[in-house]
Amino acid sequence: MAIDNSLFGEYSSAAFSAYTGVRVIMTAAANPFMARAIELSLENVRSGCGGPFGAVIVRHGQIIAEGVNQVTSRNDPTAHAEVLAIRGACAKLASFELKDCELYTSCEPCPMCLGAIYWARLARLYYANTADDAAGIGFDDSFIYREIQAVHARRRIPTAQLMRDEALAAFRAWADKPDKIAY
Amino acid sequence: MAIDNSLFGEYSSAAFSAYTGVRVIMTAAANPFMARAIELSLENVRSGCGGPFGAVIVRHGQIIAEGVNQVTSRNDPTAHAEVLAIRGACAKLASFELKDCELYTSCEPCPMCLGAIYWARLARLYYANTADDAAGIGFDDSFIYREIQAVHARRRIPTAQLMRDEALAAFRAWADKPDKIAY
Repeated sequence: MAIDNSLFGEYSSAAFSAYTGVRVIMTAAANPFMARAIELSLENVRSGCGGPFGAVIVRHGQIIAEGVNQVTSRNDPTAHAEVLAIRGACAKLASFELKDCELYTSCEPCPMCLGAIYWARLARLYYANTADDAAGIGFDDSFIYREIQAVHARRRIPTAQLMRDEALAAFRAWADKPDKIAY
Repeated sequence: MAIDNSLFGEYSSAAFSAYTGVRVIMTAAANPFMARAIELSLENVRSGCGGPFGAVIVRHGQIIAEGVNQVTSRNDPTAHAEVLAIRGACAKLASFELKDCELYTSCEPCPMCLGAIYWARLARLYYANTADDAAGIGFDDSFIYREIQAVHARRRIPTAQLMRDEALAAFRAWADKPDKIAY
C-alpha cells in the first residue's frame, strides 16, 4: 500500500466536527484515503444526497475519483458510492479496468458493489464499517449477502429460467466472433 | 406473471436469422419478453457494443426499459444489461424502486446485477443462460459468485478493514437524522 504520509497534514476533520459537534481524533492507524471516504460519508448525510456512504479510488498514491451514495437524489438504486467512484475512475482513465487502483470505502461493499469491484479488477480493497453495521441502521446489505448464497428456489425474489436453448445462440455467436473485445 | 399473448404475433426472429443464419423456432414455452432480451443479446454481439447480454424490464405487461452490455464501448465495468435496464426504468418512473416490475435477462445475473435487482426491489426475475454458461465463454460470473461467498482473507482481491470507529460517526448521524429518505 503506497501512502504518502505528507497527506496527513492536509487532512482536516472539520467535516466531522461540523456535523457531529465532536472533533474526531485521528488515531495512529488513520489513513488519509479512508479518512476522505469517511468525510464524504458524513458530508452526504448532512447534504441529504443519499445514504451515509463515501468511497475514493487511489492510483499511484493519488485520489483519482470519489463517490457518495446518491440513490435517492438520482432515483438510481445502483448509485452507490463505490459504483460511482468506479465509473468516475474508469471515465477518467478511459478504461473499463482499474488494475493498478485501490478502493477505500467507508463501509464494506454490498454484493452489487463487490461485484463491480471484481469486474473493474481493482488491486486492493479497504473498508471501515461492516455489512452488519449497515444492517444495524436499516440497510439490506447483510440480507442481500444471504440471498445471493441461497439457491434460487429459496430466494425472496421469485426466480425462474426460460428459453436457455434459444439464448445459447448469442453465447455461441460471441465465442465465434473473431474481433470481440474480451473483458 | 402477466403476459399478453397477442405480443407473440409481433415478435420476429429476424435478428436471430440475420446473425446466425438459422431461423430460431420458438417453442411453446417461448416468452415474448425473454425473446426480446435474447434478441438484444444477439444484436449486441453483431454491433460490437459489448458482451452477449440483453435485458428488459416489464411493468403491467409492457416493456418499459431495455439494456444491453456496454462495458467495453462505454468504458464502464458496471454497464451490464441488467444495470442499464434498471437505471433506465427508474429514470422513466422517477423512482429508485421497481416493486411492480419484472426483469427478463438473457443470462443469470452476475452478483453485481443480482445486488442491483435486490436494491431495485424487483418483483420477479427470469433468466435464460446460466452463470456457468457465461463462464464457459470466458466471463467471470461463477468466479465472482465463489469469491463473494469466501471469507475476506481468502478472496483474490486483498481486503482489509481500517478506521471503523471513525466511520461509525456517519452511521450514527444517519440513524439520528430526522428527515432522511430511507431506501
